[in-house]
Amino acid sequence: MSECPTHGLMPVDTAIEILQRAGRQKTPAIEEMSLIEALGRVLAEDVISSLDVPPQANSAMDGYALNTADLNGEMIFTVSQRIAAGSQPSALQQGTIARIFTGAVIPNGANAVVMQEDCQVLADGRVKIVATVKDQENIRPQGQDIVSGQQILQQGERLTAAAIGLLATIGQPTVRVYQRLKVAFLSTGDELVEAGQPLAIGQIYNSNRSLIHSLLNEMGFIAIDGGVIADNLPATLAAFKKAAQLADVIISTGGVSVGEEDHVKAAIDQCGELDLWKIAIKPGKPLAFGRIGDVPFIGLPGNPQSVWVTFLILARQFLLNRQGQRHKLLPYAIPIAADFAIHKSQKRREYLRVRLNVSEAGLVLQRHNNQSSGVLSSAVWADGLAIVEMGQTVAEGDFLPFLSFSSLGVA
Amino acid sequence: MSECPTHGLMPVDTAIEILQRAGRQKTPAIEEMSLIEALGRVLAEDVISSLDVPPQANSAMDGYALNTADLNGEMIFTVSQRIAAGSQPSALQQGTIARIFTGAVIPNGANAVVMQEDCQVLADGRVKIVATVKDQENIRPQGQDIVSGQQILQQGERLTAAAIGLLATIGQPTVRVYQRLKVAFLSTGDELVEAGQPLAIGQIYNSNRSLIHSLLNEMGFIAIDGGVIADNLPATLAAFKKAAQLADVIISTGGVSVGEEDHVKAAIDQCGELDLWKIAIKPGKPLAFGRIGDVPFIGLPGNPQSVWVTFLILARQFLLNRQGQRHKLLPYAIPIAADFAIHKSQKRREYLRVRLNVSEAGLVLQRHNNQSSGVLSSAVWADGLAIVEMGQTVAEGDFLPFLSFSSLGVA
Repeated sequence: MSECPTHGLMPVDTAIEILQRAGRQKTPAIEEMSLIEALGRVLAEDVISSLDVPPQANSAMDGYALNTADLNGEMIFTVSQRIAAGSQPSALQQGTIARIFTGAVIPNGANAVVMQEDCQVLADGRVKIVATVKDQENIRPQGQDIVSGQQILQQGERLTAAAIGLLATIGQPTVRVYQRLKVAFLSTGDELVEAGQPLAIGQIYNSNRSLIHSLLNEMGFIAIDGGVIADNLPATLAAFKKAAQLADVIISTGGVSVGEEDHVKAAIDQCGELDLWKIAIKPGKPLAFGRIGDVPFIGLPGNPQSVWVTFLILARQFLLNRQGQRHKLLPYAIPIAADFAIHKSQKRREYLRVRLNVSEAGLVLQRHNNQSSGVLSSAVWADGLAIVEMGQTVAEGDFLPFLSFSSLGVA
Repeated sequence: MSECPTHGLMPVDTAIEILQRAGRQKTPAIEEMSLIEALGRVLAEDVISSLDVPPQANSAMDGYALNTADLNGEMIFTVSQRIAAGSQPSALQQGTIARIFTGAVIPNGANAVVMQEDCQVLADGRVKIVATVKDQENIRPQGQDIVSGQQILQQGERLTAAAIGLLATIGQPTVRVYQRLKVAFLSTGDELVEAGQPLAIGQIYNSNRSLIHSLLNEMGFIAIDGGVIADNLPATLAAFKKAAQLADVIISTGGVSVGEEDHVKAAIDQCGELDLWKIAIKPGKPLAFGRIGDVPFIGLPGNPQSVWVTFLILARQFLLNRQGQRHKLLPYAIPIAADFAIHKSQKRREYLRVRLNVSEAGLVLQRHNNQSSGVLSSAVWADGLAIVEMGQTVAEGDFLPFLSFSSLGVA
């Protein structure tokens, strides 16, 4: 890698760009399913409506359909038909009005609906109109919302509940989406013990395994648990080869520095290709990117806070693109005032765990008081990440770009 | 209902407050499950750590553990042991240093770690230290992140991926959460046709059914499809009674106005209790709230845009509270500049479908050009809702409170 302008580190945006481009090189196979099953999936084709919505002009109100040409001083009318939503009306008999309900089709010959609040029903059943009525009043024209031939959804869009509702509006029973990406995840470290087991001296509980599994589940991928790799080369090699047979992408945590105990690089040199990046990101910095056979590989750091940030900012970009998503990939960072100061600048872009708070001055960012902690307390406490650029100092009240966890899909 | 200070309509905040309070009157039963299964669930108990994290002081670097008292001008040392992460060290032999790796336990007798970059390995295997070393340098103290007895998560918190990772950190294999709320949903309207069927004149496709189903799924509830109710009283009554046997909460769309074709009110008067609210909300306004037998009932409007907004702003508050969630229920509305003007004020608080855009002036809100559409195109297009208060006009550049769809859990 040659793109390391500052302090020999790769800028975060360069890493994101490389990961996005690599992610787009392939998409999963396409499958077709019911709308309800497709929630959260990525659309594999543009969707074009083959009908007008509404399919006919209909009434926006409960009231009476009439022809304004009949309103020549005469304001008392016979009701010649009753049109409920879902029924097919007859043409409006000249000189009469039709009782009509919200959503019901406007009969031929009518050009307005007067709302029932502006009418009086007389003792003989006839109706007196006590308001002026304009042409087209309270009528929703045919095709007002969607015109036949109109594109309503784009390939590469993630199907939200609103998108599912919109697909239902045009009567489409199924939809073609990309298969869910299969992501194998492995952790490294002889010190790791599974929950429920006792801890010997020197051991710690494995939090990255549950963290990555949950992150992958939350983002809608198929998570394949590759387990914990023993800290030796043959075990690392065997685990990677097995993962490559099962998955579309492989992610590991830990083992990507160059210490004597780190075997990830050596193993992948035997069965693929690996770049070790030093990225100007804090927490984080070391990230490995390459392939095991033909399967893309991302090696995250071992510290859970670094996993959290590098997964959300870097790995997520690769995974969403590889899943086929092409829209709303990068959430907007929203400027919000900091309620803290940072006097010492950093050589890496820092992603602070911050919470939104209401102060007298309005909404402010509050910083977690232990940004260097190895565990996820601050990520649980926080609402998102505030970005402090390399070399930047912060005065209280300065606006910092804020990425909410919800906009990153993990709140 | 007496709380209708403006134009005879109930303020949105009053409706939210009533729904929150009613929601909190009951919580689902508690069940215990593995961490991975518990993602997205609501925690039914406080979680207290029974261990220190880290459990022993450990090294923050690859390097050498030593005792700074031994650094009396002497800077060349014998390496007396090698301590990998996960292994149990012996006490440090006086006058020697120990090879140590990131995460490995600090041996008794050592009080600092010098990073390997500040050391030279000599030909005879001894190591020369070429930096000054301070007491406690590169040591993560026992309990730095979590102290035994500390509360790490609160009852009523939604379990995000970070929270699952934090639970794994303290070695807890299972967690007690509330059972998923069972929500039955029904739609009303003889004009509704299911996807894939042909449309006769006057008919439209049923979008609310898929919309509500997807919204409930996306929020993690168990969605029970009660189907479409025919527009007559006996069918409405039978459908409601059946739903009340199956569900913890019942939601309907359509049929809550007082038109001749609306049978929801009449049906519930026979088997429960119902208030018909007129809320100062646009889109929306009519909302029904009551009970069928002992099962809470929320009747949403029939227009999909109104369903979308009243579900997210009103029904969601009831559902999350009833699910047992007590934290982060109302997302923060973030002030962002409007790139549009509104000259005519409204008698209801309006929730505009808006998109975030980058302009020369920074991030701005763009309004969808068809706010009155009946279909969900604008909800699909938008990133969230901008709030315009009753009586408020908007000049271009005015800051409006913005609720992102992601912060509402539906993007």
